[in-house]
Amino acid sequence: MALAWTLLARPHGMPRVTDFALKFMTLPPLEDGMVHVRNRWLSVDPYMRGRMNDAKSYAVPYALNAPMLGGAIGEIVDSRAEGLAPGDLVLHSWGWRDEAVGPADAVTKLPAITVPAQRFLGHLGMPGMTAYFGLLDVAQAKAGDTLFVSAAAGAVGSAVVQIGKILGLRVIGSAGGPSKCALVRELGADVVIDYKTEGLLSEKLAAAAPDGIDVYFDNVGGAHLDAALGAAKDHARFAMCGMIESYNAPHPAAIANIMRVVRSRIKMQGFIIFDYNHRIGEFHAQMGQWMMDGLIRSDETIYEGLRETPRAFLDLFSGGNLGKALVRL
Amino acid sequence: MALAWTLLARPHGMPRVTDFALKFMTLPPLEDGMVHVRNRWLSVDPYMRGRMNDAKSYAVPYALNAPMLGGAIGEIVDSRAEGLAPGDLVLHSWGWRDEAVGPADAVTKLPAITVPAQRFLGHLGMPGMTAYFGLLDVAQAKAGDTLFVSAAAGAVGSAVVQIGKILGLRVIGSAGGPSKCALVRELGADVVIDYKTEGLLSEKLAAAAPDGIDVYFDNVGGAHLDAALGAAKDHARFAMCGMIESYNAPHPAAIANIMRVVRSRIKMQGFIIFDYNHRIGEFHAQMGQWMMDGLIRSDETIYEGLRETPRAFLDLFSGGNLGKALVRL
Repeated sequence: MALAWTLLARPHGMPRVTDFALKFMTLPPLEDGMVHVRNRWLSVDPYMRGRMNDAKSYAVPYALNAPMLGGAIGEIVDSRAEGLAPGDLVLHSWGWRDEAVGPADAVTKLPAITVPAQRFLGHLGMPGMTAYFGLLDVAQAKAGDTLFVSAAAGAVGSAVVQIGKILGLRVIGSAGGPSKCALVRELGADVVIDYKTEGLLSEKLAAAAPDGIDVYFDNVGGAHLDAALGAAKDHARFAMCGMIESYNAPHPAAIANIMRVVRSRIKMQGFIIFDYNHRIGEFHAQMGQWMMDGLIRSDETIYEGLRETPRAFLDLFSGGNLGKALVRL
Repeated sequence: MALAWTLLARPHGMPRVTDFALKFMTLPPLEDGMVHVRNRWLSVDPYMRGRMNDAKSYAVPYALNAPMLGGAIGEIVDSRAEGLAPGDLVLHSWGWRDEAVGPADAVTKLPAITVPAQRFLGHLGMPGMTAYFGLLDVAQAKAGDTLFVSAAAGAVGSAVVQIGKILGLRVIGSAGGPSKCALVRELGADVVIDYKTEGLLSEKLAAAAPDGIDVYFDNVGGAHLDAALGAAKDHARFAMCGMIESYNAPHPAAIANIMRVVRSRIKMQGFIIFDYNHRIGEFHAQMGQWMMDGLIRSDETIYEGLRETPRAFLDLFSGGNLGKALVRL
């Protein structure tokens, strides 16, 4: 028997712990070509909120009363598949559960490189890859550009800041509160904006980038997007990655500066990292090298034990995590 | 002496006729390299509203108590410049006035093709060029695409509809009221949406494009942009040309579907037609050919006499024009 977190009800607005239930699941028999995995690390990510809605999105909505799917790292405890043996660590997307049995082709064996395994849920995983291709491919960032990134202390944002500095950009990061802002500064940002302190975000950004911004990496939407539009130079590029501010908001935000898209010839480009899966090798090679060279640090907020998973997830929306939020089993 | 409309005061919200004053202007002496022009046609265009604000924009703000600049077609009445002789028709940007004297290199002699001169302020001029490059270059429209265009009975929109049909797109056009909608239908649109009738624009668009839209050509912003975001297919391209609904609005509109930029990987690209000036030859060749072939019809709303110019301009914002709005002197 496995224990798994299931979605009980589709939340309206902010999800609550009571939207989830921990249930026993019978594991299927281990047949040829299958593996039995015991999870070590679970990932909680903002995009999961979108899958909790029964609405058109890039990923299939979560089914009610079924396990919450998502990135996880586990250890093989039994295998009837070639190339996978007990003790191997694998990445999979079976989500918020302690154990799982499934087809071997749905798991990826972690390569033998000297980084902690959980990095493959963070800077060497989906969030890091989102930062990498969002900045380089979607926004076409280049040395000398002034970059603004929101949620700069988060899993994606902390990678955006560091990759930006490696590439020779001037980096302005926003985060909420002193400890997050201190982290963003340590990551190398040239200017850090605390959006929670008094004053208009648009004015803080104008002060940080008096000549405007070339690139905006959006993780937040709302007032951050509006401020970025207001500060955009002509032909600025916006990599539209997420809008965490809106996921649970009851009413959509007005965007006062939307006309700047026309006037400043801004390119706003949404992207989903799954579309870059065919280029994962390029990402692993470059990011792995930067990590080996000590150019990327990875901060984590770790929750202990399966029971903490819903809380770890909910904390994403109240700013509870510094860096990548993970659950350790 | 010339008579010219000047800007008296910068409007807040909707401009009024009292924001303008008709004044006598002394013409400078005709020196070497200069021409004296008597205007035949004046253009009024929505973008002029933006230049009336004292704000960062793609064009320099209009100076107060100075002539309203803009596209016009005039006849040379005197010339001290090579290649320009009395009787020649020229395009220039000296705007809302009956006569002007200025440098010959600021005017363009109209080519000897058999279309009415005022087309060079319409489908063979800035609005037509905006439609052409917006659709082909910015939005990368191609045969088989479903296109939604707002303000489809206007100077730009009426060209977008017709170019869309020539290229083999399925075209959905929106306009306000029965006579405009009848025009859009005559222009060849497959579906016409009257945004003024009862019902939500988003629902009308969903009914018109049950499989979604590939391309949106935005002239309106606000609810039109929101509906287009809601109807966008994955990887849809939005050519962001203008947002006439917002130019005089006291409060910015909420955009409920902004998150669809991320989820559907939409590319929203603002553009200004001046950036395509180096490709005007390509436009003239193609659009001229389509006109010769009878594939483009040009509808005009003509106001008679210089004194009507402010009214012609103000009517743009209350939906008073069918096709291109022009003043004939």
